[in-house]
Amino acid sequence: MSETVRELSVQLGDRSYPIMIGEGLLEARDLTPFVTGSQVMVVTNDTVAPLYLDKARGCFPGKQVHSVILPDGEQFKEWQTLNRIFDGLLEQQHTRKTTVVALGGGVVGDMAGFAAACYQRGVPFIQIPTTLLSQVDSSVGGKTGINHPLGKNMIGAFYQPKAVLIDTRTLQTLPPREVSAGLAEIIKYGLIRDTGFLAWLEDNMEALVALQPAELAEAIYRSCACKAEVVALDEREGGIRAILNLGHTFGHAIETYAGYGNWLHGEAVGTGMLMAAELSCLEGMISRADCDRVRRLVARAGLPEKPPVGMTADDFMKLMAVDKKNVDGQLRLVLLKAVGDAFVTSDADPDNLATTFSRFCTPAA
Amino acid sequence: MSETVRELSVQLGDRSYPIMIGEGLLEARDLTPFVTGSQVMVVTNDTVAPLYLDKARGCFPGKQVHSVILPDGEQFKEWQTLNRIFDGLLEQQHTRKTTVVALGGGVVGDMAGFAAACYQRGVPFIQIPTTLLSQVDSSVGGKTGINHPLGKNMIGAFYQPKAVLIDTRTLQTLPPREVSAGLAEIIKYGLIRDTGFLAWLEDNMEALVALQPAELAEAIYRSCACKAEVVALDEREGGIRAILNLGHTFGHAIETYAGYGNWLHGEAVGTGMLMAAELSCLEGMISRADCDRVRRLVARAGLPEKPPVGMTADDFMKLMAVDKKNVDGQLRLVLLKAVGDAFVTSDADPDNLATTFSRFCTPAA
Repeated sequence: MSETVRELSVQLGDRSYPIMIGEGLLEARDLTPFVTGSQVMVVTNDTVAPLYLDKARGCFPGKQVHSVILPDGEQFKEWQTLNRIFDGLLEQQHTRKTTVVALGGGVVGDMAGFAAACYQRGVPFIQIPTTLLSQVDSSVGGKTGINHPLGKNMIGAFYQPKAVLIDTRTLQTLPPREVSAGLAEIIKYGLIRDTGFLAWLEDNMEALVALQPAELAEAIYRSCACKAEVVALDEREGGIRAILNLGHTFGHAIETYAGYGNWLHGEAVGTGMLMAAELSCLEGMISRADCDRVRRLVARAGLPEKPPVGMTADDFMKLMAVDKKNVDGQLRLVLLKAVGDAFVTSDADPDNLATTFSRFCTPAA
Repeated sequence: MSETVRELSVQLGDRSYPIMIGEGLLEARDLTPFVTGSQVMVVTNDTVAPLYLDKARGCFPGKQVHSVILPDGEQFKEWQTLNRIFDGLLEQQHTRKTTVVALGGGVVGDMAGFAAACYQRGVPFIQIPTTLLSQVDSSVGGKTGINHPLGKNMIGAFYQPKAVLIDTRTLQTLPPREVSAGLAEIIKYGLIRDTGFLAWLEDNMEALVALQPAELAEAIYRSCACKAEVVALDEREGGIRAILNLGHTFGHAIETYAGYGNWLHGEAVGTGMLMAAELSCLEGMISRADCDRVRRLVARAGLPEKPPVGMTADDFMKLMAVDKKNVDGQLRLVLLKAVGDAFVTSDADPDNLATTFSRFCTPAA
């Protein structure tokens, strides 16, 4: 095991924290050094609990450990379900010295993190992400929150964990679609600012799809390191951090159109990145060959290459207009100046945007 | 007007902000220098809206101003009502550059502030407190949040405003019970660390009860300054800030026993301070004469001196055990080492606590 353990420190001044990555860590690590009080509340869902809840409890020897098991699914990322965490904390009389632990994917992490941010105005928080997407996305950045009927992630907080533990062995039980969804975000890091990593991914995509532990640990480490660099430059998302949203504006529109939970977030981001690459090509910034290179890598990761059948340009425009990345009503998009160099613009040519939609949208039969 | 305008800067590094205090400020001040975007959402309630909403709108010339009018009352300080603020922001397509303005008392301030803290993970916030209690309490400290059926203020955030505007003229429409409730918190500042202010209050209590503008501005200024000093020393309530809770552990028990909204927060704090003074006297820290001095000042402010009839020592103990000021299960209380010198202790003698309850509790007839 030891040869594949990697550790990364996310540098945020007095809120810096470690990310520990390796195979079998859930059975090997004592997390009590990151717990200040005597109480721990593990938040998980009904898919993850039978697989890993007992192992996660084992990370906190000598502590009083309770758990809240939420229903699994993005559709439950809303207030009523969040409130079950508060119910559990209050029923078990957890004080403001309790530690909340998120055990699961991005939805569990977002909800447990937001609950930790709000419970008694903020208690410590530890993440044990068990999906590839959450390992490379939610581990860094401190974004937590829930959805509102009128928009995704509209209610939340920036809140940093005390530590993140990533056990790559948890990926063995992950459905292949979710592995692909995680790979979409991993590809994104290569595309936005790390051509070396992008080339590495082109060499190792099959090993990642086959869940080879050493390659997984490397890809997760490099993804988290890339995101940590960007976030350290811009913790509260005023500037450069926006490049992390490559593919997300198109992607959020796809997710909303399909209905929460029908398309995985990473799947929508995968298609969204292809649309962003196409628009970048039409804008004359990247070559057609670069555009194809992105498409091949996304395809090898097992990701969809088109939006849902029947989704139109109008659907996109309407759904993108309420995306929160828009400042004062302007449509802001992340595009590629080059492969490995993303930037934010409000100046995409509307004709090129229309052409992008026409090339990607498939009319209903 | 100008002779009674006072301004105070709350020092919190890059989150420092001004508190402007004076008669008629709501009609005189342009608050747009504190607004970065083009949108403003004023959150108020159905009691305050007919009196001051138009005037508050006038503080934001040239901005797109919307409003959300909540039902008035502590019982509405919960998720469903909070969500009406999010509904309003999303329905009116407010972006992350919007500014949320709280116009009203503590409940409106807590909810609007928490909504600002959570909307798109945080948008700017301005407070226009219109009750004496909220002017001297919510103006400083950044506490926001809502209640949970199992406890008051259990869900919330520390979140600082960009500015606070206090128009003492709004107190002319405040019911006398609410003036007294505000005076309870004002007395508290004298008791915890400002004997000079306490003596000033003993000289000016009748002027305050009569809502004399100059005396009100002075009392509000000195209260906010006192709280700002304590909060600057301890923004997130790890240490000295706890002295601000003088009377609050007893007070919260009274409020919960009486049912939210039946006792005003300040009324409960007033009685709670008398209980804390009594216990301090029994513990041998302050004299019986000091204890009577506190009682007289509280009585002159028009505050109740006893808990609700029928509330027993057992009721207190049970309700105080879930108070969030308790760390790891220990009952922590704020007591007086001397008049003007409060401290936190977990070591109050249980017999003296029992004697305090026996002297304050009145059996049901």
